This record gives sequence, C-alpha cells and structure tokens, in this order.
Amino acid sequence: MPEQPIVDGAPVPSKSELKKRAKALEKEKKAAEKAAKQQEQAMAQAAADVDFAKECYGPLPLNQSQSRPRRPRVNISSLPSRDGDVVLLRARVQTSRAQGNKMVFLNLRQRTDTVQALLVVTPEKISKQMVKWAGGLADESVVLVEGIVRKAPEPIKSASVSDVELHISQLHLISGIDGRLPFSVEDASRPDIDDDQLESTDTQFKRVLLKTRLDHRIIDLRTQANQAIFKLQGAIGDLFRQYLGANGFTEIHSPKLQGAATESGASVFKVSYFKGNAYLAQSPQLAKQMAIAADFERVYEIGPVFRAEDSNTHRHLTEFIGLDLEMTIEEHYHEVMELLDGLFLSIFRGLRESYKNEIDLVGRQFPADEFKWREGSEGTLKLTFKDAIDMLVEDGVPREELDDINTENEKRLGRLVKAKYDTDYFIIDKFPMALRPFYTMPDPEDPTLSNSYDFFMRGEEILSGAQRIHDPNLLADKMRSKGVDPESMQPYLDAFRMGCVPHGGGGIGLERVLMLFLKLNNIRRASLFPRDPKRLEP
Amino acid sequence: MPEQPIVDGAPVPSKSELKKRAKALEKEKKAAEKAAKQQEQAMAQAAADVDFAKECYGPLPLNQSQSRPRRPRVNISSLPSRDGDVVLLRARVQTSRAQGNKMVFLNLRQRTDTVQALLVVTPEKISKQMVKWAGGLADESVVLVEGIVRKAPEPIKSASVSDVELHISQLHLISGIDGRLPFSVEDASRPDIDDDQLESTDTQFKRVLLKTRLDHRIIDLRTQANQAIFKLQGAIGDLFRQYLGANGFTEIHSPKLQGAATESGASVFKVSYFKGNAYLAQSPQLAKQMAIAADFERVYEIGPVFRAEDSNTHRHLTEFIGLDLEMTIEEHYHEVMELLDGLFLSIFRGLRESYKNEIDLVGRQFPADEFKWREGSEGTLKLTFKDAIDMLVEDGVPREELDDINTENEKRLGRLVKAKYDTDYFIIDKFPMALRPFYTMPDPEDPTLSNSYDFFMRGEEILSGAQRIHDPNLLADKMRSKGVDPESMQPYLDAFRMGCVPHGGGGIGLERVLMLFLKLNNIRRASLFPRDPKRLEP
Repeated sequence: MPEQPIVDGAPVPSKSELKKRAKALEKEKKAAEKAAKQQEQAMAQAAADVDFAKECYGPLPLNQSQSRPRRPRVNISSLPSRDGDVVLLRARVQTSRAQGNKMVFLNLRQRTDTVQALLVVTPEKISKQMVKWAGGLADESVVLVEGIVRKAPEPIKSASVSDVELHISQLHLISGIDGRLPFSVEDASRPDIDDDQLESTDTQFKRVLLKTRLDHRIIDLRTQANQAIFKLQGAIGDLFRQYLGANGFTEIHSPKLQGAATESGASVFKVSYFKGNAYLAQSPQLAKQMAIAADFERVYEIGPVFRAEDSNTHRHLTEFIGLDLEMTIEEHYHEVMELLDGLFLSIFRGLRESYKNEIDLVGRQFPADEFKWREGSEGTLKLTFKDAIDMLVEDGVPREELDDINTENEKRLGRLVKAKYDTDYFIIDKFPMALRPFYTMPDPEDPTLSNSYDFFMRGEEILSGAQRIHDPNLLADKMRSKGVDPESMQPYLDAFRMGCVPHGGGGIGLERVLMLFLKLNNIRRASLFPRDPKRLEP
Repeated sequence: MPEQPIVDGAPVPSKSELKKRAKALEKEKKAAEKAAKQQEQAMAQAAADVDFAKECYGPLPLNQSQSRPRRPRVNISSLPSRDGDVVLLRARVQTSRAQGNKMVFLNLRQRTDTVQALLVVTPEKISKQMVKWAGGLADESVVLVEGIVRKAPEPIKSASVSDVELHISQLHLISGIDGRLPFSVEDASRPDIDDDQLESTDTQFKRVLLKTRLDHRIIDLRTQANQAIFKLQGAIGDLFRQYLGANGFTEIHSPKLQGAATESGASVFKVSYFKGNAYLAQSPQLAKQMAIAADFERVYEIGPVFRAEDSNTHRHLTEFIGLDLEMTIEEHYHEVMELLDGLFLSIFRGLRESYKNEIDLVGRQFPADEFKWREGSEGTLKLTFKDAIDMLVEDGVPREELDDINTENEKRLGRLVKAKYDTDYFIIDKFPMALRPFYTMPDPEDPTLSNSYDFFMRGEEILSGAQRIHDPNLLADKMRSKGVDPESMQPYLDAFRMGCVPHGGGGIGLERVLMLFLKLNNIRRASLFPRDPKRLEP
C-alpha cells in the first residue's frame, strides 16, 4: 500500500479538489472584503448622519428670560455699513426658498427693511440637515440669525438692502407659526390698483380684499406700506404737538364719559354707568371751551372721539382720533384760522421733509399724485362759502341744490380748485349759520352767516372750526333756536357766566389727514384697528 | 304947573323914592350876581359831569370779530422789562379795591402771573366816573387794559410781578360775571393744610371743600396752583414722548370700543352699539401686544382708560389717562424694566429742571416734602417681592397677612424704604404669578413667580408691568387657569399664532404720577374734570 500523508487524519485532497477550495477561499475573501467595505461605508454614512451643526440651528426654548448674555443685535438697515462683520439679528422670515438640497435663500424682514440671507451646506459648518430645516421654515416665523455680511454679487432687487447679503452661520427659531397664514405679507403688499390698470403679469397674484385684511389685521399691518403708514400717523401727532407747543399751547385730557348726551344732533353712544347712564363724548368741544373759561388760554387734545352714526362710507369711523385745539382770540377769529393754517403747513412740510422714505413706501402700494399745497407769499387759498358756491354754479351745479355742499360737490369743488389754483389744500370761510352748531359765533353784520371755516384736503373736509359764542345769554338763545335745552347743558353754560374770553378753535380728524395726504382712499387703512358700525374686532 | 322933566312919560321920582329904587337895584344886582354865580357853578358842575373819559372805559360790545386793528398785546410776565412803556393787555380782575373815590387798585391776573394796576382820578384823563366804574368791576371780570408800566415804589407782595405796577389809562370790559361766584379764586388758592396747622390768622378765611371745587371746577382751575398742575401734567406727557421717541418708539392709537369684555376680572363699562353691545377698553393691553405681533417693535399710547370699579378712594378714577408702552425683548425682560426706569428718571429730572416755578407754585398751596429719587451709580432701588415682604415682616407685619401687599402695607413699605434708602421711588420685581393677570410670563425656574414688576412713588403703585406670554398655547392654558375662555379672546390669541416676538411693557397712570410727584393727596386734583362713581360733571 502506498503511504499517504495524513493531515489531521483526513485524506490528502486531490489536485482538482485543491483548486476548488482555493476558489472558494478567494470568494469568501472577496465577500469579507465587500462586507468590510460595506461596513466601512455604513460607518462613514453613520458618521455623516451625526449632525455636526446641530447646535447651530433649531427652535429655541420659549423665552422666559432664562438668561441675559447681552450679545449685541443689529438692525437690517445697518447692514450695508457692516460688510465683513459677523452680526446677530432677530427678524421675520418673509419667504424661504430652497435651491436643490444644498442651499436656501431667506428673505429676512424687520418692519420696512428686508435683506437676503443664504445658507449653504459647508463641511463642518453648515450641515445638510440644517439647510433642510431652514428650507422648511414657515413664512412669518421669527428667527435669530448669526451670519457674516458680504457684498452682494449683484444688486438684490427683492430686498430693501440691496448691496449686501447675509451668509448665515447660525439660525434659530424664536417664534413659529401655529396654523396657516390667511394670506401672505407679499400678497398683501402688492400695489393697490384698479383691475383695468393691472398688467397681465400681475393677475397671477392673489389680491387681498380690505375686509380680509382687516379681519386679519395683524398680518396686514406687517406690510411695508402699513409700517410706514403708522409711522406717518405718529409723525402727524408729533408735528401737531411740536407746532402747538412752540405756540404756547398746553395739552389737556378731557373725560370721554359725559353725564348728558350733548353738543349736537349727532347720535351718541350710551354707556351703563353704575346705576345710571353716561354718554361717550362726540368731541372734546365742551371741555376745551371750559378749559378756556378756566384761563388755560391755548389748549389742545389728542384723543378718541365717538360717533354713533350708522355711516358706512369710505370716510366714516365710529371711533377716531381727534386733534382738537381751542385758543383765546384777541381781536378776530382769523387769528385762529391763521394759526390752524400755519399748523397744517407745518405738518405737510414736516412730513415731506422728514418722512420721504415712508411716503415713497406707501406710494408703492397706493400710487398717488403727490399732495400739493401753496407756499410762499401766495399763501393758502381762502374762499368764502359764497365763492365756493359760485364756482360750483359756474361749473353747472344748480344753485338751488347748494344750500349746503354735499360730499359729491365737495369733491367737485376740490377738482375745480385743483384745476384753477393747483392746490390740494384750501380753506372755506364764512359758512351759513344754519349749517353750524349752536355754539358758533354769528357774523357781526349778516346774522345768517357765521365766523366759521372748514379746511379741505383733496376735496374732503379735514377740519371744522369757528369762533365760539362766549356770552352765556346769546349761547342759551342759540341753543333754544337749535332745539337744545339749555338746562341740559348747565355746567357748560355756567362756565361762560363766570366770565370767558372770546375764543375759537377747530377739530381735525387724524385718520382723514393721513388718508388724504397719502390718498389711501379708505379711512380704515389709516386706523390701526378701525371701528365702524359693523366692526368691533380685532 | 311946574314943568317936570318927563322921562318916558313917567313922573320924576322923589329923592326918597330914588334911594329906595337904588337899594332895590342893588338887591337885584346881587341876586343877579348870585344867580350868575350859581349858574356858573351849575355850569361848572355840568361841565364836570360831562365825562371827558367816557371813551376810555366801559363795556365793549360782544366780540364777534367786528374788526382787527392788530394792536399788539403783552403778557403780564413781560412787564418788568417794559418800565415806562404804554402797554395793552387782556387780563382777569382778580380783585378790585377802591381807596376813597379817587383811586382804585386792581389785581390783574393771567394764568399764574399777577400784577397790581391802579387807576387815579386825573384832570382831563381819568374821570371820577371812570374810577367809580372800575371800583365796581366784579372779581373775575375779563378786561382790556391800557396803561403805562411804572417801577413800584416798594415791592408788591400781593402780585407775582412785584417790581412794577400798571398805571391804567384805558379800561374796558370784555366779559363780565353773570351771577355770583361760588367762591373766590383767592379763597380757592389758600394753602391746603390740616386744621391743626392753621395759624389763628388763617381761620378768618373760608376754606373751599374739594367737592365744592370740583362742582365749580372752572373757577377752581383758575388758581395758580391748578394752572401749574396742568402745565405739569402736559409736561409729563411731553417728557414721556420725548424719551420714548428718542428710544425708537412709535405712538399708536388703539380703539376704546371693544367687541368683548376682556382682559381681567375688573369690571368693564358696557356700551350700546347699534343693535348690539360694545365694551370700553380697560387698558390698551391687548391692542399694544397685537401691535407687537404686527412688528411695530416698540409702541406707546397715551389715552383714556376706563374702569367700572365702584372704588371711592383718594386714588381711583373711573376714567384716567394711561401712559402705556410695549416693546420687544431680545434676551430678558429686565430690558423693559430698565427702559421704564430710565423713562421715570427722565421725567423726574425734566420736571425738576424745567418746571421749578410750577412745582413751587403748587407747593405753596399743597406743601410737600420734595420728591426724592436715587441718582448716579447707585441707581434706582430694586427689591424683589420677597425682599419687600421680608421688610414688612421685620417691621412687625404678620407674614400670613402678606400674600399680597395691600394699600396700607404699600404705604408702610414706602415709609420703610424712605427711612432705609432715602428714596421716594423704587421698583418691586418678581411678583407671585397668583397676583398677576393671565398674560404674565411665569418665572423660568419657579412657576409660582412671574417676570413682573411694579413701580412705586411715595409708597403708591404708579406702574404695573411684565414680560407677556407670546406663545399661544401657554397663553390659552393660563387663560383657562384664570377662568377666562380662550374663545372669547380669539383675535388676541390669533395674533400670537401668527408668530410673535418676546415682549413686555407697562402701564402708568398719568394722574397718579402727577398726584404723587406733587403730593396732592387726592387724584381728583390731578384730573382736569375727574370722573368717579359719583361724578360725571362738569
């Protein structure tokens, strides 16, 4: 028998068998290598999925003032001067727009300022997860952004800051959106123009109706136009106070709760007052006259005025802000009329000089001819009521329709005046006594006329004023002749029995001035949260 | 027949007859002389009775703006610089006092300024009739006076302008008094001190009760103290606006008519609103927070606030002026608290620096310790609610009575703070959540505490404020836990669903600040025409 080498007691394999085994081993080795490679890949994948940027984004816990690191934050408007700086800012996400899965553009907004920000996947800095999260941010979210300011490669037309952009390094959510926005701020910001003026490209966009805007006023107010409108509203108040402060006026605050329904035929709101009733003041008229009787000499008041009139027009509110003033007269009521004229000119000039940017912003949404007034030696146009009637008659309005000037004829007169005198602002003096309240001083020569005036902007009345009757007996007579019982206004009448200086004044509707200066066409646009017979919310 | 010379056919008289006749003639002559003398005297008398001054005095016709001579008129305060000038001015007759029938002293008043004027019978210039008429002028008449300014022979203590007096040449009545004054402005101006502090010489004067003053507020307001109080009221508003304007705030006007009775348990006034009801806003709280949700960033409002609480105390009104503000928070609510502190310091400094004269005038009628606050690096005292409780406990108040600090303990705390820290102004921070309204942000660590503060002046609360909850879900939870139905405040809640920046603010009572700065002891004195549960007039 031939001797066979014994390996582990197993018979020595044949050559062919060896070949087979070598093949199998090779296969195993390859499989193992593949598995190792796969595992390596899996591990590499796993390593990639660990988000190295997770501290750099995401929602912040609810701010309950947990800490105060005192890290300075900047305004978007300051970014052009910060090229190259790392900045921190809080803003709203107006829009977010992903480009592929590596880049997101955010349009960030602070009031009337916007800037483009971008977030790009960057090794060890900006992860894919971060970019994805940013791309999913709801419009109108409030975020805290850290980034570096960089010159924009080309002007960014979609942002108010067009020459720089913000390269985001950190992005956190301060406050998100709960639910769906009723409309987007972008849609709410489109120019308010008539349908026939719409260009075909505009028609793709939703138009947001005024009612919808007012129902969701919080969103509507975020438009650049609205931010500007209410800066301008504040500016009118400031300019009013500045002018009057410089002219010796004292600010007063008179009560809106009155013991009696008084002053004029206009309806008043009744209030349940403990076991009785009170009434909301239709104006500070009585109080400011009483302040004159109390020797305050020159007073003004800025405050709400309430009118229970069921007027559903573009220019009536049930609650609006009255800019009221009253002053003593030395010789003639034109002293008051001239001061009021000086006041308006000061407001117009102040707006034009210091708020050009805001006026332009409003104009983009509400296109308007620039408001015009006469300056210099020419001065403000002053017509008498008779002059005004004559102009309307000459234009074809039958004289018998012109006992009063109704809204339509007011506008017509505005157009006639604009055509003839090139001004949107003028005064009508010497109204018929029959058209004015009982406290109006009659003309000294023609008792059918009165020492009273209205001021107009773009053909709409924005101020009504007059010399007042300071003699208690004449006042009581006039009350009776207008159907007002003097007994019902005893405290007011008594003020004049204790001696009162001749005086006059006027009341201005803040929202009307704002609406007409900017040509907003509806007074609700000039009121933060407007009130009309059908609206008490928000 | 002897020829007798014939005189006119009459017989020649005898010698005795001639004597008789001569006597008679003499008598006649004397009589004639006497008559002539009498006539002369009568004529002289008549000449004297023709009032050569009648153009120089008397009532003017009712001013209906008959003419406009444009004659400059001056202020009493300018008289010291006009020695020797002939001036024209309008003023009230505070008092008139005749000396014999040849001289009258008038105390003339314009707001807080008074001057002594005198009228002396002067041949061809000032007639007796004129002096008599002037002596009969009722107190509080309004007159137009022409006169020459002369150095006073000695300082006139009874007038604010003490170094000159006015020698009257013309005196006309612009407006007289119809009836009797309820009290004199002089009586109304006497120092308001406790009976036991009255000196015996004071007791001869009438003291005018607060109720009487308020019933006849027009007269009461004419006192120098009241003229100054309301200049200071206006000044607080100005200083408030100046500080906030410089710190980026926008003024807003929010509606006082609300669709629902909201905000807190405090009672609201109900208004008949066309066919439904409305409610008067208890504060602009909701509106100003909604303005923040609308991205206004920093807002303030000055306007009436209505509280239907039947509180008849020295410090409650049913209508008062709220100075409200709201602002975004970047990191911590102390940003707001510190801004409010800066605001108060700016108001205090502004009053002290620019209104010293007014503060002094008020102090003469309402004596007060000067208002004290801490300046410089020391800064305003800030206590936590817990610190304040500990101070009261240490002073002997049982801790179990101190879940809240009532009015009495507030005042006690004010005294303790004054004694220990020498300040009338301080802040208490971190009130228990249970004491604050639902919209207050809880402390991040201790949910029984809140991020809220009150400010105090002379131991009375004048501002309440806090960080607000800007998360709609937490807000709804807190509403429910305080018994408010979130559905009833839908528009307010919705504002936060649309994303809202962390924010906080505060509300200041204007009248309280004025009352406490000046120590007027009753808030009605700081309100032009105060309203409380029992008063709706004048």
